[in-house]
Amino acid sequence: MPQNPDAADLTARLIRCPSVTPDEGGALTLLADELVAAGFICQRVDQNGTPNLFARWGAKGAARSFGFNGHTDVVPPGDPSSWTHPPFSGHETDGWIWGRGATDMKSGVAAFVAAAIAFVRETPPKDGALILTITGDEEGAGKDGTLALLDWMRAEGEQMSVCLVGEPSNPDRMGEMIKIGRRGSITIHIEARGLQGHAAYPHRVRNPLHALTRLLHDLVTTPLDHGTAHFDPSGLQVTTIDCGNPASNVVPEKARATLNIRFNDLHSGASLETMIRDRADTISAETGVDFTMTSDIAGESFLTEPGPFVDLVAGVVREETGLDPVLSTSGGTSDARFVKDHCPVLEFGLVGHFMHQVDERVPADQVRQLARIYRRILERYFA
Amino acid sequence: MPQNPDAADLTARLIRCPSVTPDEGGALTLLADELVAAGFICQRVDQNGTPNLFARWGAKGAARSFGFNGHTDVVPPGDPSSWTHPPFSGHETDGWIWGRGATDMKSGVAAFVAAAIAFVRETPPKDGALILTITGDEEGAGKDGTLALLDWMRAEGEQMSVCLVGEPSNPDRMGEMIKIGRRGSITIHIEARGLQGHAAYPHRVRNPLHALTRLLHDLVTTPLDHGTAHFDPSGLQVTTIDCGNPASNVVPEKARATLNIRFNDLHSGASLETMIRDRADTISAETGVDFTMTSDIAGESFLTEPGPFVDLVAGVVREETGLDPVLSTSGGTSDARFVKDHCPVLEFGLVGHFMHQVDERVPADQVRQLARIYRRILERYFA
Ligand SMILES: [Zn+2]
Ligand SMILES: [Zn+2]
Repeated sequence: MPQNPDAADLTARLIRCPSVTPDEGGALTLLADELVAAGFICQRVDQNGTPNLFARWGAKGAARSFGFNGHTDVVPPGDPSSWTHPPFSGHETDGWIWGRGATDMKSGVAAFVAAAIAFVRETPPKDGALILTITGDEEGAGKDGTLALLDWMRAEGEQMSVCLVGEPSNPDRMGEMIKIGRRGSITIHIEARGLQGHAAYPHRVRNPLHALTRLLHDLVTTPLDHGTAHFDPSGLQVTTIDCGNPASNVVPEKARATLNIRFNDLHSGASLETMIRDRADTISAETGVDFTMTSDIAGESFLTEPGPFVDLVAGVVREETGLDPVLSTSGGTSDARFVKDHCPVLEFGLVGHFMHQVDERVPADQVRQLARIYRRILERYFA
Repeated sequence: MPQNPDAADLTARLIRCPSVTPDEGGALTLLADELVAAGFICQRVDQNGTPNLFARWGAKGAARSFGFNGHTDVVPPGDPSSWTHPPFSGHETDGWIWGRGATDMKSGVAAFVAAAIAFVRETPPKDGALILTITGDEEGAGKDGTLALLDWMRAEGEQMSVCLVGEPSNPDRMGEMIKIGRRGSITIHIEARGLQGHAAYPHRVRNPLHALTRLLHDLVTTPLDHGTAHFDPSGLQVTTIDCGNPASNVVPEKARATLNIRFNDLHSGASLETMIRDRADTISAETGVDFTMTSDIAGESFLTEPGPFVDLVAGVVREETGLDPVLSTSGGTSDARFVKDHCPVLEFGLVGHFMHQVDERVPADQVRQLARIYRRILERYFA
């Protein structure tokens, strides 16, 4: 019988695959080799040049099907000479594994792959299935990655009962946080169009900057909400205002602004569009300045309500780490926003230090601890 | 005895001098020839390539000395083929004189030169002096124009008791408006510097756009005043806001804005700087966003209080036009802002139609009427 991969060693081997988005870099091939050897059915589901790997152990359509999701692509390392050890070396020293992807998230993928292989070899469940979805485009646009994989699965009749995303979820200490949902994110571009004219004749102009400033000030100073049971208050940030008028004695015709809202379960992308449209209309009616808007909803908010799945994961984390994990919905987006349309989804992984930074690295013991947690979650789930 | 120049004919001859700022174009030479022939002492006071003409009739240091001020430079005509008649043709047809400078303000200069010549030839005062200051740089930066002429006069011991600037002062009908002062103008550039960061983590950023929006909204919505006896309310216009942040998920570090204030006699450039600095400091203390400011005071506000000089000019205008002129402080800057530091100054001239436009033109009769008004003002002043 082949040897089970060690999660830390597998992390180092994955780091040596230069899989900067959207390059596969050998990472999915390496994983497929290990998984096939352990009895998984593996299939590449590449779309538009984006590499994706689907792997299943157990019967298709099994009533109980546990999923893991992760990504092997990494952000660019920047100048390699800034690194203490080369970014794709997977150098191991003093208990640390160095390289791009060490925390985000080749370690997380290595941990769930190692856990899944050991589980099916050593304590295989009588029925049920394990499904691993691993994409090579999480750091990029994302639409040809996990989203495409999930569409393909639905078309093929493949399904997960629950899914655990292996992204780093702990801010500082292993075991302190499980993510049970995410805020939504919408970006809105606003253009204000008034009437140009000389700054000395205010009655002959309609200053788009005054109307835009009023709208933005209004939005910034009016809280969207005060948070909900599992969510922080929604937050709005103006990210740019641009006009480009070089003439200080002339009121410009047009000005543009962009704002980004991270919103909780009291809102939707559509409800926020309507709210801002209504406020803009009120200001238009009073000022004669017209507003046009375009928006891009990166994701709606979602929540996996506390219940048996959350209790299972939290219980294992507590046993393995001694910490009582916070159930959080904080932070930026992840592919959980796609998984949530298919099954309950949680995120639990490593400590997020060094993500996207020079000298990204991870303690080997932490990766092995994560693999133990995943293994025990599988045992408990199929018990 | 040489013939007195006709104001309309002199206007056409001046238009034929292509005196786009700062080119003299023959305009000042033409005027000096006429003035010298009528007994004026003429002296060119050119500075840094800017042509200026000083002319005096009567004794230096006379107790009663009436001044006229104007400019012969013009803004560029743009594409000559867009004009019905070539812009430097001085074409006369159907009672109109066509060309660049027809209203702003070769006609005004022609009117006061013609009036002054006829006056000193036909009804010379027993004592007193007439002083004409004519610059070739009013449309440009201005510091080598009237400002330099006045400095030179002060150094030479030349002085005016009162001065009439011949800029077009009437919005629509000849005689409806005398300008007795001007609002001041200050331009302030503001840079806000906060702390850059990810839009999803508001507690880790200090958004300079939020602080800047608050400051500008505060300034725009708080009236500076409600006007004074002779001034409109002061007005503030934001003329640009720029940030240039292309990343909609990132809060930027810096943003800039420019605003322009046209202010009345309740304020000075310095008092407005202090007021805005104070408001910015309050916002800095609350937000941690720093503001830096630079400002450019184009001119302080000034007023020639109603009194004998205003009554004299208004009385003549009323008699010649049948209209009761409004005493106004509206509009943009003019060289009166420099003259006001030397003597009481008023502005009265033509109707300002077509200024700086294609097909600039003026009714010949209106120029002759203006010359009659100026002549009668001189008679009344020296009576
Ligand atoms: Zn990641
Ligand atoms: Zn002018």
